[in-house]
Amino acid sequence: MRKLILIISLVFGIAIHTKSQSLDSIAIRRIYNTTLAEQKSSQWLGQLCLNIGHRLSGSQQAEQAVNWADSLMNSLSFDVYKQECMVPVWVRGAEEQAWIISGNNKIEVPVLALGGSISTPPNGIRGKIVEVKNFEELDKLADLGQVNGKIVFYNTPMDQTKINTFEAYGEAVRYRWAGAIRAAGYGAIGAVVRSVTTALDDIPHTGTMGYSDTIKKIPSCAISSKGAETLSRLRRGNPNLEFLFQFQTKTHPDAKSYNVIGELKGTEKPDEIIVVGGHLDSWDVGQGAHDDGAGCVQAIEALYVLKSLGIPLKRTVRAVMFMNEENGSRGGKKFAEVAKLKNEKIIAAIESDAGGHVPRGFGFKGDSAKVAAVMKYKELFTPYMTDYWKPGYGGEDIRHLEDLGTLLIGFHPDSQRYFDYHHSANDTFDKVNSRELALGSATMAALIFLISQYGVD
Amino acid sequence: MRKLILIISLVFGIAIHTKSQSLDSIAIRRIYNTTLAEQKSSQWLGQLCLNIGHRLSGSQQAEQAVNWADSLMNSLSFDVYKQECMVPVWVRGAEEQAWIISGNNKIEVPVLALGGSISTPPNGIRGKIVEVKNFEELDKLADLGQVNGKIVFYNTPMDQTKINTFEAYGEAVRYRWAGAIRAAGYGAIGAVVRSVTTALDDIPHTGTMGYSDTIKKIPSCAISSKGAETLSRLRRGNPNLEFLFQFQTKTHPDAKSYNVIGELKGTEKPDEIIVVGGHLDSWDVGQGAHDDGAGCVQAIEALYVLKSLGIPLKRTVRAVMFMNEENGSRGGKKFAEVAKLKNEKIIAAIESDAGGHVPRGFGFKGDSAKVAAVMKYKELFTPYMTDYWKPGYGGEDIRHLEDLGTLLIGFHPDSQRYFDYHHSANDTFDKVNSRELALGSATMAALIFLISQYGVD
Repeated sequence: MRKLILIISLVFGIAIHTKSQSLDSIAIRRIYNTTLAEQKSSQWLGQLCLNIGHRLSGSQQAEQAVNWADSLMNSLSFDVYKQECMVPVWVRGAEEQAWIISGNNKIEVPVLALGGSISTPPNGIRGKIVEVKNFEELDKLADLGQVNGKIVFYNTPMDQTKINTFEAYGEAVRYRWAGAIRAAGYGAIGAVVRSVTTALDDIPHTGTMGYSDTIKKIPSCAISSKGAETLSRLRRGNPNLEFLFQFQTKTHPDAKSYNVIGELKGTEKPDEIIVVGGHLDSWDVGQGAHDDGAGCVQAIEALYVLKSLGIPLKRTVRAVMFMNEENGSRGGKKFAEVAKLKNEKIIAAIESDAGGHVPRGFGFKGDSAKVAAVMKYKELFTPYMTDYWKPGYGGEDIRHLEDLGTLLIGFHPDSQRYFDYHHSANDTFDKVNSRELALGSATMAALIFLISQYGVD
Repeated sequence: MRKLILIISLVFGIAIHTKSQSLDSIAIRRIYNTTLAEQKSSQWLGQLCLNIGHRLSGSQQAEQAVNWADSLMNSLSFDVYKQECMVPVWVRGAEEQAWIISGNNKIEVPVLALGGSISTPPNGIRGKIVEVKNFEELDKLADLGQVNGKIVFYNTPMDQTKINTFEAYGEAVRYRWAGAIRAAGYGAIGAVVRSVTTALDDIPHTGTMGYSDTIKKIPSCAISSKGAETLSRLRRGNPNLEFLFQFQTKTHPDAKSYNVIGELKGTEKPDEIIVVGGHLDSWDVGQGAHDDGAGCVQAIEALYVLKSLGIPLKRTVRAVMFMNEENGSRGGKKFAEVAKLKNEKIIAAIESDAGGHVPRGFGFKGDSAKVAAVMKYKELFTPYMTDYWKPGYGGEDIRHLEDLGTLLIGFHPDSQRYFDYHHSANDTFDKVNSRELALGSATMAALIFLISQYGVD
């Protein structure tokens, strides 16, 4: 008899499980269908990119973007509020130029000041070039006394053999971030960094750089990848070749800005919160389309589609447009600080900050039981080819929530093209495909739906 | 004792299997690394697209493309030969125009004559519009006597909710292919077909159309998707609205052309042949970049990387640039005909004719044991995210090999963007990403390597 009961309950259990799985898969199908049929996100991204454009923290455009996000989410009847945060204000001057000077030849090459760099003197920085592939080479040349008084040229291309370009980015970006500090420590007068990009072209890519409080600040710029190839080739032919670069930048006092937050209240456990977000600020070139207008409109579209389909959300869902990811992460820090202060229970946070390309899956970071609890939904995403799920990294804006025990989830679109555009004049609206963008929103909306139903435990 | 032998042989068997799997995975890694580091395919595609451009069968550019492929594969030291085939020669006139005429308003809209269409009279075809979504609607309107003497407008967008856009294409393309026949059968004077595209823009997409020997031939053109929306909207406001379109086309006698074939001879079983190919011809707009310059340069790059790495190929590998896929498939038919005549043993054929986007996997068609024998290598492709492998369709050029018992393999790149460009002025070199293209070549090269090692049995 006990055996019979066991069998019956097993059969029932499987039946119930199968039924809920199948209801979930129907809901997910509706989410994908509606998102693909309407493709709202690219319309919104067009407004942000074409009407406002790039929007570095503290700029007038960043404030316009705050108002745009506020107004858009209000028009969609989310509960919307702004969260104040102070942001750094760094401003690029109008004229940025650089030349390779070899004998009587003066060849202009495209450069961009790195974000946070001090100005050059009005007539620029001019000096001989020390070319290195990595810090080890720099250390050796410094030991030989060959760095002092020169311009250090970090000529490190991204490793094209990596399938995930973010891995190659992680390796190469250290020279952009720490190159000026290391070079100045050896008495260099400037640092020129090969653009961190997968493309070979004439477009320089900017990005944030660091200084040390104890080491002299020297100006630093990114040179286009083709410019780097030219500089390297000419230097091999003429070791006495010189480089000259000039730009004027300015750091103003911190300014007031905002995270913009839209919310759909949960019906059963409203105190348990799922965050989905991107960052509203961008670098001060291009239009901040893939980085990260895409993430912002996808977060909004995810909430929009869940709301418009009338899918009942048991837990609260919050779309967050973070401010200042690019050069300070003040918005991400403020959001975590306030959540901690209010003792909010943010059970999961999804960040889309890897571009608007076709979605491949997610990376998960957090308590292993929670990771396992959510990763069991993977197969539901196979029909959409979005089931590359694995442990990984969440994202710069949400990582400050780690202390709160939040499950951090990085949205992973395909990475092949992203660094062709990233932080450059080429990161424009026309590079974003409407279907790919919407598929990303749907993928996140589907995961939000499941977590809002079942939690992460 | 027998048990012991069994255990020993089992352990050895597993060890040998594991070792060969691991050697295979090392070879595959080398294939991907070299292809991504060198990225030859996009350089070659640039030559084809920018120096030659579009190349419809029988055109001067198609002949230039034949010579280019011949010369490129010779320069790579493949065994190269050309295979003669006769191709149809259809030529588009210089002037193609269309207008919506509503009262005193005359609004120009973008159109392209469909491939194979007869000319309109010099002053064009002018008539009232009958708009339908499908053939059922057409049949009903014909029953009501509303089609005779009018222009039929097929306004069928691709179904955006399909994840695989090729499925949506398959549904919508029937109106382009058979629309004129069905309309003429009811006495219509012309057929206008909404461009079969995922994009909403002003670019018309051409493609091949059919006529029946027993039904009057009427001219047919594709209207851009935005043009279709405009026409539909204005027609709702004015049922007496007229449409006027004009173009001159010409069909010349068949001309001589070629498949271009490059070969690497197998060392152990040279009589067993693996084909990899794309088609060299394209539609007569744009540059034939994704369709199908991409497939051609990927096939060449696959052989190039296998040869340059010195990977020993047990079986023969043959890169085939097929001629005339777009409007006749004469090259594909000729290739199969000759193979049959020579009693060649073509064990597998891979076709890349779905664009140069990031690879997702393969579709297999053929004897189920052969499909299973090859599909067991799927896991070797997981590190490259190219492991969506499933039964499916091979490709238009290789399908004629089915009678020979060949395992047909369709290469599947991501499909989201393809129909934005397909058969239109937008199918240009700048739409192809160098890493994505090379990843496709590497994925095919890796599969060719495995089949050349192990066969398909």
